[in-house]
Amino acid sequence: MTLETDLLDALRGIATHPAARGLMDDAAVLGDLVLTHDMIVEGVHFLPNDPPADVAWKLVAVNLSDLAAKGAVPIGVLTGTGLTDDPDWNAAFVRGLHEALLHMNVPLLGGDTVAMPKGAPRSFGLTAIGRATGHVPSRAGGAVGDALYVAGVIGDAGLGLAIASGQMSGPAELVTAYRRPRPLIEMGCALANQVSAMMDVSDGLLIDALRLANASGVGVAIDLEAIPLSKAALRLGDDRAARLRAATAGDDYALLFTSALPLRDLPGQPQRIGQLVAAPGLHLTDRAGHVPLPSQLGWLHQG
Amino acid sequence: MTLETDLLDALRGIATHPAARGLMDDAAVLGDLVLTHDMIVEGVHFLPNDPPADVAWKLVAVNLSDLAAKGAVPIGVLTGTGLTDDPDWNAAFVRGLHEALLHMNVPLLGGDTVAMPKGAPRSFGLTAIGRATGHVPSRAGGAVGDALYVAGVIGDAGLGLAIASGQMSGPAELVTAYRRPRPLIEMGCALANQVSAMMDVSDGLLIDALRLANASGVGVAIDLEAIPLSKAALRLGDDRAARLRAATAGDDYALLFTSALPLRDLPGQPQRIGQLVAAPGLHLTDRAGHVPLPSQLGWLHQG
Repeated sequence: MTLETDLLDALRGIATHPAARGLMDDAAVLGDLVLTHDMIVEGVHFLPNDPPADVAWKLVAVNLSDLAAKGAVPIGVLTGTGLTDDPDWNAAFVRGLHEALLHMNVPLLGGDTVAMPKGAPRSFGLTAIGRATGHVPSRAGGAVGDALYVAGVIGDAGLGLAIASGQMSGPAELVTAYRRPRPLIEMGCALANQVSAMMDVSDGLLIDALRLANASGVGVAIDLEAIPLSKAALRLGDDRAARLRAATAGDDYALLFTSALPLRDLPGQPQRIGQLVAAPGLHLTDRAGHVPLPSQLGWLHQG
Repeated sequence: MTLETDLLDALRGIATHPAARGLMDDAAVLGDLVLTHDMIVEGVHFLPNDPPADVAWKLVAVNLSDLAAKGAVPIGVLTGTGLTDDPDWNAAFVRGLHEALLHMNVPLLGGDTVAMPKGAPRSFGLTAIGRATGHVPSRAGGAVGDALYVAGVIGDAGLGLAIASGQMSGPAELVTAYRRPRPLIEMGCALANQVSAMMDVSDGLLIDALRLANASGVGVAIDLEAIPLSKAALRLGDDRAARLRAATAGDDYALLFTSALPLRDLPGQPQRIGQLVAAPGLHLTDRAGHVPLPSQLGWLHQG
């Protein structure tokens, strides 16, 4: 996205406070507070016929996933809701918001509600505030030789989107993975003091891994066959094409991290998928050897 | 606005955490942190031909004004910027954002940038985080007999909007008051420990005074002739109609507060304009006696 890239460069030029981390990270860090703000817009991040409760869920989940990646426990959210004159949609949205907040155990602290002009898409923003439980990992802490891990699974949400939009058939659990992602808060907090770098996988594993490597000033090697796919995804295919599709699909909200240490005391078993290397860029292999990079490494939201 | 009222009721039902203050206040209060989030949308809060730097300024100022009303010093902002494919506009917006942040001495900590779908209006949100300097006044602390004050002037922004939109002629300083409001941070912090209730005047003095009175469970009596008008505004008219127009125009970002104490050590001289009374509702007088309430007490943003 030209627009986002240009704008981000301009915004980075004015975000000089150290807490902003140069706008290169998933969140801002102010003392022990971790703060993040993501927007979702109808026609960009969700479709007019998506269930409103799922839109609300996603709004909360994508922001809490950023807190998870920084090892922060959510302490509150503020919402900006730009709605249209559709009382049923709006009521369902608020019910979904309530359900998501209860499920993810975070209170609504405030915000603003605006009626959008006629014909305008719905537009939402959410600020999530978290409290760090220890070290607040950045994307930039990785070093050559660190192992690269994923906690959670990769590719379910991409398959779920394809199923939801009628491009293929598959089980409902994949659609749920797309519409109701679960931020890995507990895992993120347990990992925070054990990782050298961490981020959440929102735009696709390959593009996000490259971002982590670039931020750390190193390269990254990934074994395509080590990427954790769910059983439901594996039943739909496990060849190179299927794995590349999983590794370039967005919206998974898994955690991607690096560590030079053995991992311990975790609420699950992250999967080692590769390591950081000296040669810059992204290096992909499977049992057949070198895998050429796909032309798209991930999902870039189109305006 | 039916939409905003219904939605707010539904949102209040789920914002049960004490920090949310029932969504009845200008900001959330979490320990010594004060948090607020306001949106501005093209076609609702600003016009497509408004200067982009002024839109950015207003986005910052309206949120910092909420912090001022809680006696909080701004410590950072996160922005959600939904922009269109107009590089010149966007560059001017970022320059204006930078100017506003420097002027108001608050760092940009993070946020999100999204390209809106084709034809959609620009949509912005900003979360401002402040640190309380002492007591954090609410709207609800007023008691019968407390004096009602305004810090800042009332009506300049309304006149500025009328001038900017070609409905009347007048000096440029009034247009500046509309486009570049100055949040009264220093005054708000100096007042915080001296007031029983405080809020900023964003939608119009009369409607906001009624909100403060309602939240405090009392009524409010206002002397129309005591309302502080600027010299520039007075030159354009000082009769009852002019004063009612000033008292029902929005966007002033003055501070409205109540106190039973003599005020001291302030960076300016607030104007006493009335008091809280036992009889519920809003009671308006001038030298001729009772003033019938206008049909519109303030500005309600239309979607």
